Amino acid sequence: MDKRLGKQTLKFDNCPVITETSSITGPKEGEGPLSSYFDIIRQDVLNGCESWEKAESQYVHDNIKHLCEKAKTKFEDIDYIISGDLLNQDSGTMFGIRDFGVPNLGIFGACSTMGEAIGLGAILVDGGYAKKVISSASSHFCSAEKQFRFPLDLGTQRPPTSTWTVTGAGSLIISDKGNGPCVTHFTVGKIIDMGIKDPNNMGAAMAPAAVETIYAHFQDTGRKPDYYDVIATGDLGYLGKEILLKMLTEKGLDLSKNYTDCGIEIFDKETQDTHCGGSGCACSAVTFCGYFYDKLMKKEINRILFVPTGALMSTTTSQQGESIPSIAYAVSIENME
Amino acid sequence: MDKRLGKQTLKFDNCPVITETSSITGPKEGEGPLSSYFDIIRQDVLNGCESWEKAESQYVHDNIKHLCEKAKTKFEDIDYIISGDLLNQDSGTMFGIRDFGVPNLGIFGACSTMGEAIGLGAILVDGGYAKKVISSASSHFCSAEKQFRFPLDLGTQRPPTSTWTVTGAGSLIISDKGNGPCVTHFTVGKIIDMGIKDPNNMGAAMAPAAVETIYAHFQDTGRKPDYYDVIATGDLGYLGKEILLKMLTEKGLDLSKNYTDCGIEIFDKETQDTHCGGSGCACSAVTFCGYFYDKLMKKEINRILFVPTGALMSTTTSQQGESIPSIAYAVSIENME
Repeated sequence: MDKRLGKQTLKFDNCPVITETSSITGPKEGEGPLSSYFDIIRQDVLNGCESWEKAESQYVHDNIKHLCEKAKTKFEDIDYIISGDLLNQDSGTMFGIRDFGVPNLGIFGACSTMGEAIGLGAILVDGGYAKKVISSASSHFCSAEKQFRFPLDLGTQRPPTSTWTVTGAGSLIISDKGNGPCVTHFTVGKIIDMGIKDPNNMGAAMAPAAVETIYAHFQDTGRKPDYYDVIATGDLGYLGKEILLKMLTEKGLDLSKNYTDCGIEIFDKETQDTHCGGSGCACSAVTFCGYFYDKLMKKEINRILFVPTGALMSTTTSQQGESIPSIAYAVSIENME
Repeated sequence: MDKRLGKQTLKFDNCPVITETSSITGPKEGEGPLSSYFDIIRQDVLNGCESWEKAESQYVHDNIKHLCEKAKTKFEDIDYIISGDLLNQDSGTMFGIRDFGVPNLGIFGACSTMGEAIGLGAILVDGGYAKKVISSASSHFCSAEKQFRFPLDLGTQRPPTSTWTVTGAGSLIISDKGNGPCVTHFTVGKIIDMGIKDPNNMGAAMAPAAVETIYAHFQDTGRKPDYYDVIATGDLGYLGKEILLKMLTEKGLDLSKNYTDCGIEIFDKETQDTHCGGSGCACSAVTFCGYFYDKLMKKEINRILFVPTGALMSTTTSQQGESIPSIAYAVSIENME
């Protein structure tokens, strides 16, 4: 049976259900507008650890443990964990989950990771390859700044186009049965590189990839933007949002009524000094697992197109003068009744 | 329909076929015993580029382009590329394939990448989520040494337990129809960390992960080791091979007759000065795509259990005193008639 729909989209007929989510964040996210939606807010950025990298792994560990407790599910009942993060060699994830004894599929999509993780998880469950999977993604402001930009101790001034990497982890269970919204479609992005070279302007680098994926989604499904209550990209921020809306308008799609970006939702622009908004794998992961999932469960929204966006460069490629290839994955998540 | 078999294994009933492969290597691999099996052997380690990282991306690019030419397949007929490498943020892959315009699923499994890529590709094709996917993995001796160990210019002495990262890329097409061997099973590994901290002894770090996956494969399938003509791990090398055989013997599995390791096959121990053997994502990828695939097509072997192995550490985690978590993925590839 052909599950493909159009050129880049998969259609899930067996209703892979998101039965539970969990989100953990650091203190700054806990002071933001979505604070009340997060499961766990740590006041300690180091989360009791001796390094930022270990702290990130501990966030992942604590969050997935909490997820399984909430869902009253044992690790032995989870078929796979599908997960990734921004750190070199996915170490935030790998060290965070190494003690769980659950078969693991490591992925890399930079900040688009949660979209790829949900999409692959839905494939596994829809196709009968799993009964229950965990999809997870994480990031940490301090480990990301250290790795990608400057040592925090330098106090380097951040340009206005920069975003603030979210500290935290989001994870969810996709199951073959249970209550919750279903993953109905997965549109797999192509790598798009429009030549942007400024690693402090991720919004501009990633917006064209989000445009490509969103446009492909509507072409493939025949849906119109107003089909969705919310269309939410991952971490384009204020600047990326403007670029996306303009580019999609030129392609004949008007998203002005129901579009937002997780990086815009998670921090308060006026008081939190995060410039263009939030970013990092955890930005879309905790915003979906905390905020949007709650709205879906309460039927305040019933259909969301969730589009995490990722910038696929490394410090080495930027130092060698390369531009920033980007990607976006779209998953359609819907209440079915 | 439940495609799960036992606790960690998936069974593919729809015969995802490996219809074509391509392998590209550097000059050292071209002087080794498998030389005649590789599609392209570059005499220039830099592959015409100005940095080792760009060279690795160019190897990936050239190899996938050659694969599609061999298969007489256009990029627009490929549903997905599933691929990864060892470089930070999978940049070898991402920059290598960015111009192809094919939807991309980035993965990270360190040197186990080719196993994960084939397994996920087989899921997509078996389940009707794709007609044709490309699975790919790459590594480069110089970019890996620079990133994980010491600047090459230092001429640092290599300890006897070290392995030599293979320069090259392997890729293959998995299709819903055509001629070639089928992927029949995929056993997904768990992360295993036995406390080894020496990044110059990957064989010892990874062998227990290979043991766990191979043991799970035989438990889940009910098969015996002699079912396979060849059981080949990815890059355990000479030391890892001994550890694996000993650990599996203790668990009641005798692999002494049909077991080898791609890291042992690819270099000549006597003349090539590679100590414990070859390693890197490309080690298992080019050995399978070049050597074993040829033997399968010629029916010199008909059943192989291919088990790429990965060490999931980063330089940061090693510098912080962490041990090395490892993983292995097993794919069973068989001629069906």
